[in-house]
Amino acid sequence: PRSHILLFSLPLSRHVVSPAASYSDSSDDETSPRDKVQTNSTGSSDFCVKNVKQAEFGRREIEIAEQDMSALISLRKRAQGEKPLAGAKIVGCTHITAQTAVLIETLVALGAQCRWTACNIYSTQNEVAAALAETGVPVFAWKGESEDDFWWCIDRCVNAEGWQANMILDDGGDLTHWVYKKYPSVFKKARGIVEESVTGVHRLYQLSKAGKLCVPAMNVNDSVTKQKFDNLYCCRESILDGLKRTTDVMFGGKQVVVCGYGEVGKGCCSALKALGSIVCITEIDPICALQGCMDGFRVVKLNEVIRQMDLVITCTGNKNVVTREQLDRMKNGCIVCNMGHSNTEIDVASLRSPELTWERVRSQVDHVIWPDGKRVVLLAEGRLLNLSCSTVPTFVLSITATTQALALIELFNAPEGRYKQDVYLLPKKMDEYVASLHLSNFDAHLTELSDEQAKYMGLNKNGPFKPNYYRY
Amino acid sequence: PRSHILLFSLPLSRHVVSPAASYSDSSDDETSPRDKVQTNSTGSSDFCVKNVKQAEFGRREIEIAEQDMSALISLRKRAQGEKPLAGAKIVGCTHITAQTAVLIETLVALGAQCRWTACNIYSTQNEVAAALAETGVPVFAWKGESEDDFWWCIDRCVNAEGWQANMILDDGGDLTHWVYKKYPSVFKKARGIVEESVTGVHRLYQLSKAGKLCVPAMNVNDSVTKQKFDNLYCCRESILDGLKRTTDVMFGGKQVVVCGYGEVGKGCCSALKALGSIVCITEIDPICALQGCMDGFRVVKLNEVIRQMDLVITCTGNKNVVTREQLDRMKNGCIVCNMGHSNTEIDVASLRSPELTWERVRSQVDHVIWPDGKRVVLLAEGRLLNLSCSTVPTFVLSITATTQALALIELFNAPEGRYKQDVYLLPKKMDEYVASLHLSNFDAHLTELSDEQAKYMGLNKNGPFKPNYYRY
Amino acid sequence: PRSHILLFSLPLSRHVVSPAASYSDSSDDETSPRDKVQTNSTGSSDFCVKNVKQAEFGRREIEIAEQDMSALISLRKRAQGEKPLAGAKIVGCTHITAQTAVLIETLVALGAQCRWTACNIYSTQNEVAAALAETGVPVFAWKGESEDDFWWCIDRCVNAEGWQANMILDDGGDLTHWVYKKYPSVFKKARGIVEESVTGVHRLYQLSKAGKLCVPAMNVNDSVTKQKFDNLYCCRESILDGLKRTTDVMFGGKQVVVCGYGEVGKGCCSALKALGSIVCITEIDPICALQGCMDGFRVVKLNEVIRQMDLVITCTGNKNVVTREQLDRMKNGCIVCNMGHSNTEIDVASLRSPELTWERVRSQVDHVIWPDGKRVVLLAEGRLLNLSCSTVPTFVLSITATTQALALIELFNAPEGRYKQDVYLLPKKMDEYVASLHLSNFDAHLTELSDEQAKYMGLNKNGPFKPNYYRY
Amino acid sequence: PRSHILLFSLPLSRHVVSPAASYSDSSDDETSPRDKVQTNSTGSSDFCVKNVKQAEFGRREIEIAEQDMSALISLRKRAQGEKPLAGAKIVGCTHITAQTAVLIETLVALGAQCRWTACNIYSTQNEVAAALAETGVPVFAWKGESEDDFWWCIDRCVNAEGWQANMILDDGGDLTHWVYKKYPSVFKKARGIVEESVTGVHRLYQLSKAGKLCVPAMNVNDSVTKQKFDNLYCCRESILDGLKRTTDVMFGGKQVVVCGYGEVGKGCCSALKALGSIVCITEIDPICALQGCMDGFRVVKLNEVIRQMDLVITCTGNKNVVTREQLDRMKNGCIVCNMGHSNTEIDVASLRSPELTWERVRSQVDHVIWPDGKRVVLLAEGRLLNLSCSTVPTFVLSITATTQALALIELFNAPEGRYKQDVYLLPKKMDEYVASLHLSNFDAHLTELSDEQAKYMGLNKNGPFKPNYYRY
Repeated sequence: PRSHILLFSLPLSRHVVSPAASYSDSSDDETSPRDKVQTNSTGSSDFCVKNVKQAEFGRREIEIAEQDMSALISLRKRAQGEKPLAGAKIVGCTHITAQTAVLIETLVALGAQCRWTACNIYSTQNEVAAALAETGVPVFAWKGESEDDFWWCIDRCVNAEGWQANMILDDGGDLTHWVYKKYPSVFKKARGIVEESVTGVHRLYQLSKAGKLCVPAMNVNDSVTKQKFDNLYCCRESILDGLKRTTDVMFGGKQVVVCGYGEVGKGCCSALKALGSIVCITEIDPICALQGCMDGFRVVKLNEVIRQMDLVITCTGNKNVVTREQLDRMKNGCIVCNMGHSNTEIDVASLRSPELTWERVRSQVDHVIWPDGKRVVLLAEGRLLNLSCSTVPTFVLSITATTQALALIELFNAPEGRYKQDVYLLPKKMDEYVASLHLSNFDAHLTELSDEQAKYMGLNKNGPFKPNYYRY
Repeated sequence: PRSHILLFSLPLSRHVVSPAASYSDSSDDETSPRDKVQTNSTGSSDFCVKNVKQAEFGRREIEIAEQDMSALISLRKRAQGEKPLAGAKIVGCTHITAQTAVLIETLVALGAQCRWTACNIYSTQNEVAAALAETGVPVFAWKGESEDDFWWCIDRCVNAEGWQANMILDDGGDLTHWVYKKYPSVFKKARGIVEESVTGVHRLYQLSKAGKLCVPAMNVNDSVTKQKFDNLYCCRESILDGLKRTTDVMFGGKQVVVCGYGEVGKGCCSALKALGSIVCITEIDPICALQGCMDGFRVVKLNEVIRQMDLVITCTGNKNVVTREQLDRMKNGCIVCNMGHSNTEIDVASLRSPELTWERVRSQVDHVIWPDGKRVVLLAEGRLLNLSCSTVPTFVLSITATTQALALIELFNAPEGRYKQDVYLLPKKMDEYVASLHLSNFDAHLTELSDEQAKYMGLNKNGPFKPNYYRY
Repeated sequence: PRSHILLFSLPLSRHVVSPAASYSDSSDDETSPRDKVQTNSTGSSDFCVKNVKQAEFGRREIEIAEQDMSALISLRKRAQGEKPLAGAKIVGCTHITAQTAVLIETLVALGAQCRWTACNIYSTQNEVAAALAETGVPVFAWKGESEDDFWWCIDRCVNAEGWQANMILDDGGDLTHWVYKKYPSVFKKARGIVEESVTGVHRLYQLSKAGKLCVPAMNVNDSVTKQKFDNLYCCRESILDGLKRTTDVMFGGKQVVVCGYGEVGKGCCSALKALGSIVCITEIDPICALQGCMDGFRVVKLNEVIRQMDLVITCTGNKNVVTREQLDRMKNGCIVCNMGHSNTEIDVASLRSPELTWERVRSQVDHVIWPDGKRVVLLAEGRLLNLSCSTVPTFVLSITATTQALALIELFNAPEGRYKQDVYLLPKKMDEYVASLHLSNFDAHLTELSDEQAKYMGLNKNGPFKPNYYRY
Repeated sequence: PRSHILLFSLPLSRHVVSPAASYSDSSDDETSPRDKVQTNSTGSSDFCVKNVKQAEFGRREIEIAEQDMSALISLRKRAQGEKPLAGAKIVGCTHITAQTAVLIETLVALGAQCRWTACNIYSTQNEVAAALAETGVPVFAWKGESEDDFWWCIDRCVNAEGWQANMILDDGGDLTHWVYKKYPSVFKKARGIVEESVTGVHRLYQLSKAGKLCVPAMNVNDSVTKQKFDNLYCCRESILDGLKRTTDVMFGGKQVVVCGYGEVGKGCCSALKALGSIVCITEIDPICALQGCMDGFRVVKLNEVIRQMDLVITCTGNKNVVTREQLDRMKNGCIVCNMGHSNTEIDVASLRSPELTWERVRSQVDHVIWPDGKRVVLLAEGRLLNLSCSTVPTFVLSITATTQALALIELFNAPEGRYKQDVYLLPKKMDEYVASLHLSNFDAHLTELSDEQAKYMGLNKNGPFKPNYYRY
């Protein structure tokens, strides 16, 4: 049931792999961190990382990340006097990267006590974990944990003597699940859960529906700002990046079909069209299809065009969107990849059959060769191209991290009764606040309403500025 | 309180003005239609139009409109067998144009009886009204009604002997208001109200809040499809059209500031940028501002840039967005216009002062001249540029009309209890249906979910395909 | 051989038609200007215009044009001290519009004596001609000349007592032809000819080839700046404008084929794609076709796509690009128009056959109706859409006029022997100077080379900056 | 004087480095190829490569390249019957990559005898050289030659017993120079030289000017197709690729200044604008500046904007375009890189001073750190970003290779007297032919002129279609 642990088997960002990885990899130390005794420079042993001595190197990575996460730094400054998280005891379970470290250290600066573990067995930056451990944050994580290690770390994180968490920050729902199952008393007394992922949010809604959610939970996955950056804006850049890094393909003049014209599809189409590709789309939803028409894309069925395409990109979240039969009909050299939410969009399983030859030509790039010599270029074995083969800009991670921080502050400080035992979206005003904290990166200057104008519009001068159903 | 009657003092579309207007204008007939006795070719006198003899000319206009409204024609065909509006008695109050006639005749084809009046004293196409009257639809409307005529027409429309309306189709809320006040028994027994305009919807929500709405009402203004076409897509085209027709300005290289980056602003910015203008924006909402950044527009305060701008466009819905002080600082030849929801965005009143000279250089174009000779080019006196100086494509009107027709069908056929005495948005499925009916215009081919895929996604194969909060 | 006189049977710009035309048209005066005796306020009668009393109205038009022609005004200022045209006696034959008046008055300000006539029998703005006559420029032109009038005017312009032209500014070659034939002694002694049009330039090259050109001539038609503005940039805007003003068509989602991907086609494609049309192209030249591919347009044969198209636009300069057979296969409502250099691109003649009905629905818009009811929408009867149905921005005309002025100055002041009896392109340095004079309109700031950089690049700091074969 | 040998010290493409390099690098063999005796499977020893046993691996690389070079393959087929290069003895000096191998094997298939050497001491793909040697092409090249090796290889290539070259294919002019100096008799008897590079072409023009060029030479560098692909289209893609691979920067909302708006600058600006960057430009040439305005870019002086920029990109071909003073004023995190023709555009030398700290953060990425902690991110030490940090698509290389092949065929087969002892541009018709051979990659269908149309246009149905001065 834990298959999603393995979902992100590839590094989240190049930052993760390049300098950090090379440092760690050169280590000859094969001893499991669980079997080692380590102490940081202040004498604490309440952590479990690969090698606490890597702390200095990790600190530099964190400092570099801070430069692009000025929203969190500014949040530290604005809220530092009042310590809005004083008294908060947060257990967290996320990817452990330099960007997460900036978040954790912001929470600490705002008054919180934190204990942290990794939501993925491969994605931990060991030297960042070391830097956090060195400064006294109890971290339990390393790159290459076993499944048993994974749950052991979560347990060590939650089950601390003389310390009981009152808030949960989760990415994927594993921590929440563990607390719910093993420490129901902690679960019941928590002030709130902040959940980041589609999967985790789905689980929370199920718990809520079943009447078993006895804590207010905040779904930060669906906040406007995060959604737009994770999908439209981020994919607009990463589709180009992922394709170039893997195939060096020239975009100009290429015939492309993008399956699905949601936010991800819109981002992909916009970028490829701008670079001179000839793009058509497939859609099931007539509203999105009509948008596609107005944006200048032919709306087709995949079968109508599959023979002519140079590139096939899936962004539907559905399964078997590209079938074996369609793969059979593709032309020689056609590139196939997936930008959607699952790894089932392309029927990759159907390609693992004896009559086809697989040839790995680069990392993440396979040529699947038909008996007549035709090659189809399959990227990342049908997993998410942007996670596998491109990087996520720190700016996008900053938006997510800031959203998480504000959700924690909101839940921790909310007056009794504002939040019931249910799943909530981030209040629009806080969503707007996250956005406003990031405007300085662009030297953008907001206009302020005059009193008269605010009255005329029926708005508070400080927002929220839009009704909840506004579509942006 | 009726000021909005005059709101649309300018023709809605060139179609309205060109052939039709010239025909009507050449008429020497100064007699008020209320004082004339007219009979159509089947002997009916239950109508009041300028001149029923113009029917043939109006019929041609309707036929031309039908060519671009294939969604309604297709609706006629699909629903004709079952006559889903059999028994419906609809009073309608909308602009009376060729496009509306296609709607009315569709409703009749679906089984409804209709009586119709105009929602605006200037916008009626007389020859279209004549064509409707000739085919037996009781129409009460002409171009150039007085305010007294306006209410007389509404009353004649509602108050028909031996006939009591059971549905209301309104645009602006005047008809609804009249029925509510004068014919409360009709109001109470109606099966539903369909309202098209922002103003009318606002009134309905007020009635509902006050507990006085005893009929289910459908807000078709906020349906996704209509919103996108009325705002983003339509403004993307009409900003260019309106500016060219009035000023012949060359877009390339022009420095433009667009105030407000909502759907209207997004449409304007996208078009102008594409034609080579250098565009910056102002915003009060940090989320929209961040979108502006990512879309490649500098976010500024108006005062920072006002001196350099060649074009200033307001799209905020707010008032005094461009002040006299800012108008004073504009450079010679700067063009100022409004694409927003009100005519108060530019402080035009402040320009009507003795030290400034107004020179009308073309219809809808004034040069306002400062004592030092500086000229500011003001379009449509600050009213909506796209209504005043450009045209609305029939396709956009087709989407609105189809939405109205489906809303009427839904309310009329809904099982008891589905709709309470409240204001509803069009069900997403019907919104999707409107979109699907318009896809054929683009030769767009929708993909259908397989059973397996529908199950995997947890969707019905026929939609709706998105949750209500989906942002498109 | 004079057919091109009728070529521009439609007004060149809306400026021409709107205020001016209405004024002139309302005149009841049917007397031919040739039969009238008119005297301007300083007592001169050396001119022939419709009505010199319209001078004041014309002056206002000229003043408005001056606002957008700051390059000429700036040229007046820079060159005024030295009067570089002192001694020049220029006969000119061009469209007579407010913009031309700004040119003529600039030439006068620089020291020239000018006599002027019209190159087109329809395009004269009578009140502008009046304003010029009033200030003492001998003008011979009015709107609606007969062919006999046309040549009479040219002759009056050239054949002035006690005055012999030493320079010719021509647009179309008629003036040049007349002088060559009737006043060979004037022709031989001229310092130079400046020619603006494709036709006129073609004739000059023929004369030169035949060894009969005994005067240096400057081909200003092919200067870089003029070419780009007349074709790429101007068409990018006018294709949208021309289509909207005639048909109110919505661009989004429309399927468009553009025949010919030269500068005009590139402009059309770029604009339509940007507004959401789905554009494909036809080409005969593989290099342009390859550019089309890289710019994201499918390259097709017209027959492959003709059935699906909503819009067919010709930009080839060739004939019978759209044949009757293809017109037969178009779908109902298809719009057909021409942006190319001739009126033969669409085989309009083939549509004037008994089985087809023509219906004029607006000025410049015909519905051609097939026996089965199919309508094809033909614009401007296949003539140039941008001349017929849209306007040319004053900025574009300013570039042309400035180029003409500089060509005259160059030829008049060139040292003996620099120009032989041949046709020359404008020296690149002067082309660059025209461009630089227009940069101030955009608040554009040029970078200057340092001495060291100029040396490194082997360039003069003041230009020219590119070799003659540079493609821009 | 040989400094340009080192110019391309970085691999030309990822193809060059990835599979090939890893194979070669793992070799323990430190013996110089010059000291080894190798024999291919047919017994020949007339070559000198790293290791002829790598031939099979190289063959696979060549086969993969063939898939994207269908123009050359199609040229092989079309011209194979007639063997247009029968009798040609070609010495070649180019980068030795899989793409070059496809060219060489095409020349052989067309009848030529070839001997080949490398134009760069680092760029040879050893296994490709092996594959060529195995099939009997005398190749003298390996990765990591010394300067002495470089000239030794060239000499071995030219100076073959019983074989005298009659054609030269050069990239950079070194081979030509060597033949000119050492084998003047070969030089004098050659049928032609085909030169690919700016530098080599420059040398040829100098020779010609000095009257020392006794062979016709073809400048393929300036053919239209090659220019557009090497500059506009290729840079449009590689600017994004180079920046992402090195810095993972998010493009949306970034403030960018591009210095120079020639073809390279136009490509960079177009791509960055399309991805949401806010781009301004600097220019010295008013014509290019005016184009920039019309394309929607503010034209500024670098000093006006340098403080606000996130990205500074040079594309001028000039030196000291970005000075130390400007580097001092950049903001923290500003990225600086060069896409122009030299490595002197950014004054990198000025940054190598004691008060600044350099930190290499990745391959090709340096942080230059000011005393106050400000970091400027310098890419590729100011060398060409697209050669250093991105890849060149095989399609672009295919265009160059096809152009070279056609130039050789043209010179070899030209009738006596068509080409004198001068430097020529590729005839337009052959340029068009190169383009036409590449259209099939895009499934593009050219339109053919009818006889009547060709006559009307005064064109040959098979081209050339444009005059030589046409600007595309």
